[in-house]
Amino acid sequence: MPYFDAASAAPLHPVAREALLAALDEGWADPARLYREGRRARLLLDAAREAAAEAVGCRADELVFTPSGTRALHSAVSGVAAARRRAGRRLVVSAVEHSAVLHAAEAVAGGGTVQVGVDRTGRVAPADFAAALAGGAEPGTGAEQTTGEEPAAGEGTALAALQSANHEVGTVQPVAEVADLCRAAGVPLLVDAAQSLAWGPVEGAWSLLAASAHKWGGPPGVGLLAVRKGTRYAPQEPADERESGRSPGFQNLPAIVAAAASLRAVRAQAASEAARLSALVDRIRTEVPRLVPDVEVVGHDRLRLPHLVTFSCLYVDGEALLAGLDLAGFSVSSGSSCTSSTLTPSHVLRAMGVLSEGNIRVSLPAGATAADVDRFLDTLPGVVARVRAHLDAPAAVRGAEDEPAARAHADAPEPGHEDRNGGRDRNGHEDRNGDGSQGGGRNEGGDAGLVVDSLGKRCPIPVIELARVIGRVPVGGLVTVLSDDEAARLDIPAWCEMRAQEYVGERPAERGAAYVVRRRG
Amino acid sequence: MPYFDAASAAPLHPVAREALLAALDEGWADPARLYREGRRARLLLDAAREAAAEAVGCRADELVFTPSGTRALHSAVSGVAAARRRAGRRLVVSAVEHSAVLHAAEAVAGGGTVQVGVDRTGRVAPADFAAALAGGAEPGTGAEQTTGEEPAAGEGTALAALQSANHEVGTVQPVAEVADLCRAAGVPLLVDAAQSLAWGPVEGAWSLLAASAHKWGGPPGVGLLAVRKGTRYAPQEPADERESGRSPGFQNLPAIVAAAASLRAVRAQAASEAARLSALVDRIRTEVPRLVPDVEVVGHDRLRLPHLVTFSCLYVDGEALLAGLDLAGFSVSSGSSCTSSTLTPSHVLRAMGVLSEGNIRVSLPAGATAADVDRFLDTLPGVVARVRAHLDAPAAVRGAEDEPAARAHADAPEPGHEDRNGGRDRNGHEDRNGDGSQGGGRNEGGDAGLVVDSLGKRCPIPVIELARVIGRVPVGGLVTVLSDDEAARLDIPAWCEMRAQEYVGERPAERGAAYVVRRRG
Repeated sequence: MPYFDAASAAPLHPVAREALLAALDEGWADPARLYREGRRARLLLDAAREAAAEAVGCRADELVFTPSGTRALHSAVSGVAAARRRAGRRLVVSAVEHSAVLHAAEAVAGGGTVQVGVDRTGRVAPADFAAALAGGAEPGTGAEQTTGEEPAAGEGTALAALQSANHEVGTVQPVAEVADLCRAAGVPLLVDAAQSLAWGPVEGAWSLLAASAHKWGGPPGVGLLAVRKGTRYAPQEPADERESGRSPGFQNLPAIVAAAASLRAVRAQAASEAARLSALVDRIRTEVPRLVPDVEVVGHDRLRLPHLVTFSCLYVDGEALLAGLDLAGFSVSSGSSCTSSTLTPSHVLRAMGVLSEGNIRVSLPAGATAADVDRFLDTLPGVVARVRAHLDAPAAVRGAEDEPAARAHADAPEPGHEDRNGGRDRNGHEDRNGDGSQGGGRNEGGDAGLVVDSLGKRCPIPVIELARVIGRVPVGGLVTVLSDDEAARLDIPAWCEMRAQEYVGERPAERGAAYVVRRRG
Repeated sequence: MPYFDAASAAPLHPVAREALLAALDEGWADPARLYREGRRARLLLDAAREAAAEAVGCRADELVFTPSGTRALHSAVSGVAAARRRAGRRLVVSAVEHSAVLHAAEAVAGGGTVQVGVDRTGRVAPADFAAALAGGAEPGTGAEQTTGEEPAAGEGTALAALQSANHEVGTVQPVAEVADLCRAAGVPLLVDAAQSLAWGPVEGAWSLLAASAHKWGGPPGVGLLAVRKGTRYAPQEPADERESGRSPGFQNLPAIVAAAASLRAVRAQAASEAARLSALVDRIRTEVPRLVPDVEVVGHDRLRLPHLVTFSCLYVDGEALLAGLDLAGFSVSSGSSCTSSTLTPSHVLRAMGVLSEGNIRVSLPAGATAADVDRFLDTLPGVVARVRAHLDAPAAVRGAEDEPAARAHADAPEPGHEDRNGGRDRNGHEDRNGDGSQGGGRNEGGDAGLVVDSLGKRCPIPVIELARVIGRVPVGGLVTVLSDDEAARLDIPAWCEMRAQEYVGERPAERGAAYVVRRRG
């Protein structure tokens, strides 16, 4: 049963298991105590710190263990923001950081957070980062002021944050270049290395680095926080003597020992395993679009993590796709809105401007085999086809796009669609289509052209309804989709891009928004 | 090799080990994911929460798992203080809370913290707590304003905190009574149940409860935080979807499963094990003062944890005592100043007003045997005698107290003392007695009587020097000890109490303080 979600949590590495068992016997005592059990625990803790610091590329006294990668990021953001309050109160972060960074930035009161945008591959441009460091949201830089009060002109930046590689699409960021820019600007750079530390140290003159053991096959309960000497840092947690005052509470020593041992073990295999998994990922990147129609593979084809690939399937409901793959024995994750508790698409896919519907992230764990990947490639097309059939998407929609003959069919309500939309809500929201209505498109004339009422319908229905009617307007004519689904804002422009139609723009509407598309072909 | 420091960390319970191993295989995945590994993890998490909530005596949806007891306490204090800012900004805590509570209270900006004092057994009086809730530091209530600005008259109290039982001396607190008083005052009560949860649920109408798994034989890395329905609570950590938004970061699921399983297991044996260990503790309480001269057993003889006993030995250096016991195979802890990184005595012993020098805490782990305890009682007198001999304390001092003939000896510098004081500093401080001087007492006449210059000397030297000279002044005469050692403030009055001498008081001095004692016998 292949598990393809290593980017969420990797199964425990055998070395981690062995080290954990040994440390449960040898390292359960308080390392701050002077008796033999305490001294033994202290030796294990010191050795684990040395090993982890070596893997990170810092000094042992620059590294502390935290209860998780999330807590390491939270501490880093609050610790630097507090220490550098006089230097400035702005934060500059990439728009595709992990939510732990974005939420920590929100929690730091003050001068607002500037999010540096990314290109369609998910990568920030160092020039955009530099512009954001210099002055905030300059037009055309890709930087965007998103939270908090408008920073005063010239107010300084307390902290910059850039991940080493993205957790949803695998794109590797230009950390070393950005670190140099930050150094030149006198701003410390925090690197979230959660997804990449297994593969190698983060190069460059970063100031702080955070990581999480359960991403590399270590046990849960262990994060790393490195704060390089010379970085101003004022821990915001209550005073505590452990971990240099930077991570309060009794150390989770057996897990720390296991984390350090497994990091060393995965690093020893990193080069060969990266090459092997990268070839498997290349195979997925090539084969999925060949085997499944209407798929967009997202992320960078070369500057990427070795083990991770993400793609989105038009006219597919991400949750149904996950469920279908799970039934077929594959565990993957998704950034589609219908798979999130907030019913909004992943902020990463949104920042990239790529399709979010039918989104699947495959992240291969160490040891994943070519046979597993082949079986996945054998299974995926059928699962996607079944979801599309259930939504009555492929035949109807693709027919509608291809030939006007399908119109009559598109106008009639489909029972399959009804069933699914009325019954699928796992989040306790009201039935969003309980009245049995289904927008088939009505021509209101005027500026709006053909209007499709998709209000109350969730991804991927608005896009399916758009696709159903686009063939009905003449080339150059407009279709306006009314939708209150957040995913539509991302997926309608993405559909236009994929289908070579023109996305005219978005207008406010009484409920939700009106998305206007011009037929090009 | 008996380990007698269960109150710091208990060795892993066999049930915890077994559950941990099973959960490493079954519960490593992300419980928020919908695929089979995630669903399996979710089932384990839900079951662990049910079991832990049952043991705590709360609903499962009132309980979250945190990375440690310390973090649970930190979150509880900041979460209530923020949610009840309008109700008031004062905190009322016992003076003997764990430092995690005291430090969290310090970190909450605002209306100051009122510490409710304790009696010589370490127990708060509910009436003192009520007075502190009502108005702060009323004279004679035992309540003391200790940090922050003076609270405005009538300003409300955001939160009260009282431990279920003290971690250093084992005294059980009147939680149920105090909880009723808090309820009547409309103030939520946080109970730190870290030391007692293994033995049973905390009774009474508390609002929040925190605990730590590695205190009951669970693995490190797991704390519990219960927040009863109706308690205003606003998490201060950055937003996170896990654990109801009250404990950010990926759950340490294998450890959580092990924690819940072992709590259930220790509870099943709690009644019989409590009776058995309590008898062993009674034996220590009775025998130690019989076997070792000049010992003060501290804490309550009846209202106490079953497994924990603390005593202090006059004229003994706690660190040397720990080292001697460690050499003899016993692992214990100490609240003496010389065993703390800050060189101050335990705030618990200070609040109780009891002797802190030569302090030893014995906390028996589950399964500790009568033979272990007998061996400890056989070993202790010799270890104490050796430390005293090394300090040249027992013969000289006890002689000096008993008969004036010893005076000549007391006047001469002792090489043993010199060596020890000049060489023992493990904390990197300067040699505090490098000039070879040793206060032997000089009679300056006037109010001060005989003056002993113990400046630069650490516990237990100032007390030893006082004891050496007390026989030299006539009954009714004064001895003034000059000391800059924090422990002297506690130990000189405690010595007076034990020796039936009169402690006159403390005067400021150019360096340190001047402690004045009147000879009574």
